[in-house]
Amino acid sequence: MKVQHYSNVPAEEVTSAPGVTIRWLIAQSSGASNFAMRVIKVQPGAATPLHTHPFEHEAYVLQGVGGLRIADREEPLRVGSFAFVPPDITHQFINRGESPLRFICVIPMPDEEH
Amino acid sequence: MKVQHYSNVPAEEVTSAPGVTIRWLIAQSSGASNFAMRVIKVQPGAATPLHTHPFEHEAYVLQGVGGLRIADREEPLRVGSFAFVPPDITHQFINRGESPLRFICVIPMPDEEH
Repeated sequence: MKVQHYSNVPAEEVTSAPGVTIRWLIAQSSGASNFAMRVIKVQPGAATPLHTHPFEHEAYVLQGVGGLRIADREEPLRVGSFAFVPPDITHQFINRGESPLRFICVIPMPDEEH
Repeated sequence: MKVQHYSNVPAEEVTSAPGVTIRWLIAQSSGASNFAMRVIKVQPGAATPLHTHPFEHEAYVLQGVGGLRIADREEPLRVGSFAFVPPDITHQFINRGESPLRFICVIPMPDEEH
């Protein structure tokens, strides 16, 4: 078992997205094998890349306000919002506020070690 | 895609645990197939059952203070705490505060429909 506080997990910069960091809370190194839990923080004015991948996201907003862009529309996000992003859908998380946008993002366990 | 606020998802009582409710945010009905995201709320003085099952939990505390009991020890929980509970480990989430303990709990997708 692993019980820890998220703030004790190092925040890694996402090189493809200035102003975005990621913390891998639960991954292979925790003993998990099915899915990984991460916390992503997006600074004001920043956004995750507009991108697509062949796996889903399950996200829950912890802090801030923002938008989840998908195709030609944007869904508003606030604390307590959650989102299911199916595989192969182009999407982007955008900070629309003055403070960080922080959300949990769960994905199937990737091959690379975290 | 599904984007919604958690408070719009009905809270179901957990019959085996008085004072505990569960909201299935993302499950089969959202189009997900790999893992399910729920929000569990434990009232002051209440706890989830001390139980075990052959699948893991990935949890993140949203509100309140509590403890995660496992075997003969209890790990403290506060907002921002997260936990990986491996399969087949006896465990229990206990509210140790004066306000609700609320946490995200992700599990592999169960067979029954939600």
